[in-house]
Amino acid sequence: MSQTKSMTTKQIVLTSRPKGTPTPEDFRIENVELQAMKENELLLQGIYYSVDPYMRGRMNDTKSYTAPFKVGHPIEGGVVAKVIGSKLADFKTGDIVLGLLPWSEKIVALATGVKKIDATKVPPSYYLGILGMPGLTAYFGLMDITKPKAGETVVVSGAAGAVGVVVGQIAKIQGCRVIGIAGSHDKIKLLKEEFGFDEAINYKTTADIRQEIARLCPNGVDVYFDNVGGTISDAVISNVNFHARIALCGQISLYNSTEVPMGPRLQPMLLTRSVLLQGFIISNYQSRFPEGIQQLAQWLTAGKLKYTETIIHGFTQLPVALIGLFKGENKGKMVVEA
Amino acid sequence: MSQTKSMTTKQIVLTSRPKGTPTPEDFRIENVELQAMKENELLLQGIYYSVDPYMRGRMNDTKSYTAPFKVGHPIEGGVVAKVIGSKLADFKTGDIVLGLLPWSEKIVALATGVKKIDATKVPPSYYLGILGMPGLTAYFGLMDITKPKAGETVVVSGAAGAVGVVVGQIAKIQGCRVIGIAGSHDKIKLLKEEFGFDEAINYKTTADIRQEIARLCPNGVDVYFDNVGGTISDAVISNVNFHARIALCGQISLYNSTEVPMGPRLQPMLLTRSVLLQGFIISNYQSRFPEGIQQLAQWLTAGKLKYTETIIHGFTQLPVALIGLFKGENKGKMVVEA
Repeated sequence: MSQTKSMTTKQIVLTSRPKGTPTPEDFRIENVELQAMKENELLLQGIYYSVDPYMRGRMNDTKSYTAPFKVGHPIEGGVVAKVIGSKLADFKTGDIVLGLLPWSEKIVALATGVKKIDATKVPPSYYLGILGMPGLTAYFGLMDITKPKAGETVVVSGAAGAVGVVVGQIAKIQGCRVIGIAGSHDKIKLLKEEFGFDEAINYKTTADIRQEIARLCPNGVDVYFDNVGGTISDAVISNVNFHARIALCGQISLYNSTEVPMGPRLQPMLLTRSVLLQGFIISNYQSRFPEGIQQLAQWLTAGKLKYTETIIHGFTQLPVALIGLFKGENKGKMVVEA
Repeated sequence: MSQTKSMTTKQIVLTSRPKGTPTPEDFRIENVELQAMKENELLLQGIYYSVDPYMRGRMNDTKSYTAPFKVGHPIEGGVVAKVIGSKLADFKTGDIVLGLLPWSEKIVALATGVKKIDATKVPPSYYLGILGMPGLTAYFGLMDITKPKAGETVVVSGAAGAVGVVVGQIAKIQGCRVIGIAGSHDKIKLLKEEFGFDEAINYKTTADIRQEIARLCPNGVDVYFDNVGGTISDAVISNVNFHARIALCGQISLYNSTEVPMGPRLQPMLLTRSVLLQGFIISNYQSRFPEGIQQLAQWLTAGKLKYTETIIHGFTQLPVALIGLFKGENKGKMVVEA
């Protein structure tokens, strides 16, 4: 397909840096004229757009492991798109690609910024979840940092999220007892009935989470995979065993804090119990992504890993979907289908 | 020497569990009759008694990595003693031994609870310090947990203490830039002039420790060896680099807290900077002690490691010496000579 000069597209722009939880007013939908494709570029039509907790950090103007979003520019994130125009022999119309791309309905992008994905065996949206960053985060965080052994007790917070459901299932594959923490009756039910967690705790209705963890983990906690931080993590960490390992993956409960959050100092306990705590971001493991994808795909096709998505329909729903993450509106991975 | 039936000895007994910082009233000096030696036992005369920060934890009635001291019973700790009576051919009068022993001037102990030390090449008190637990703690905590690389920046808190002076010197041997934190002008001078630290910070006279660390560590902090915890550690940790390593060795600033101390939640920073934090106690490395002692002794005899002790004279000064640790009254390792 050839590109017309006057093609326009909708895009979603950050209008202001949120104070606390983002609101719809922090975003604007714009109609803009699309740049013409240049050499080595592709014209893409977005199909699935990823919304992820880490995006909150990029909305702040602070130095972190990824550059801040720019005010007045489109948000960017993981996108599965269809090629609808190509300047390269390697990419044909109809090919499905994955990339870190702007929130735009149509996108002109360098071919080097995307990779083709095989959407014949699994739905293409899986490459934003179980075969993408969340799945790899679960795999490397659990296996490489916490090294769970059969018979150990593993606790996962944010257990019903995109990363959490995978962590819990991999821990079960390793022969562990797995306890998930999530925020609704439906999620608890899902974790136990669908994903094989041994026990699950609804933190919104449990008066004393610390005591409940002690009750459900009679042998203590050997591994804690932390997606949420804050008081839930305090409760888990007070139950850790000697030589416990904590993978620090997310702190969603604190991402919208406007002041430095305070809490009990954990170091005395981490010291006396010889605990390992390791923060990580998935890009640390970039060189090992193929290993992770291969293992996850194998478990998936063998039926050992189940997967769930929350799909929101409509490109313009992206801001609402992202805001919904911080209210716990997702079960498993949340994506927006254009 | 044969033991008379009516031999008495002084011992120092814990009379009450301290609330906050220990006071002299928490201890009592008693004259007790010494039990007669039985088979496989030795009669010992204490020479050097170790006072160490970890002892504060044993004064509480809480589960930890070592059992609490018992109220009404003698304190116990590292002691270098001379054999003055023996039921075994392997131990002769005049042999010098090291053991975890009661605070008693004379001690009847099982021979299996002590080991002979070679006091011909180094003063016997060194076995309570640089060739004992503090030296091994510095060696394994720094080398095994933080793995410093030449050119990296290492910060040590409690730098003028028994562990800290060794950590800093080993880090220099590894080719690192080393910054120490301590609590007096004299200690700062000692660290820089005697022990070769590149810079040292007096936390008692520095208004903004965080800023001072930033100034003295223009390339950020790669390794933090933490002996103190609390606000000093907050200041260091706010300056850590991506992939920094923190060895959690002591938390002396918090040991006398009567409530759970609160502080800024560090996890968001540890996460985004992919930081490793590992709590440890030296007994984790028991099987590797010979390796550690050999390396420390080699550095010591090669003149690469210097050593300093604060020696307090008089057995009955033990409580005062221990209390003094929490006021920072020691330079290097503090021991009491009977």
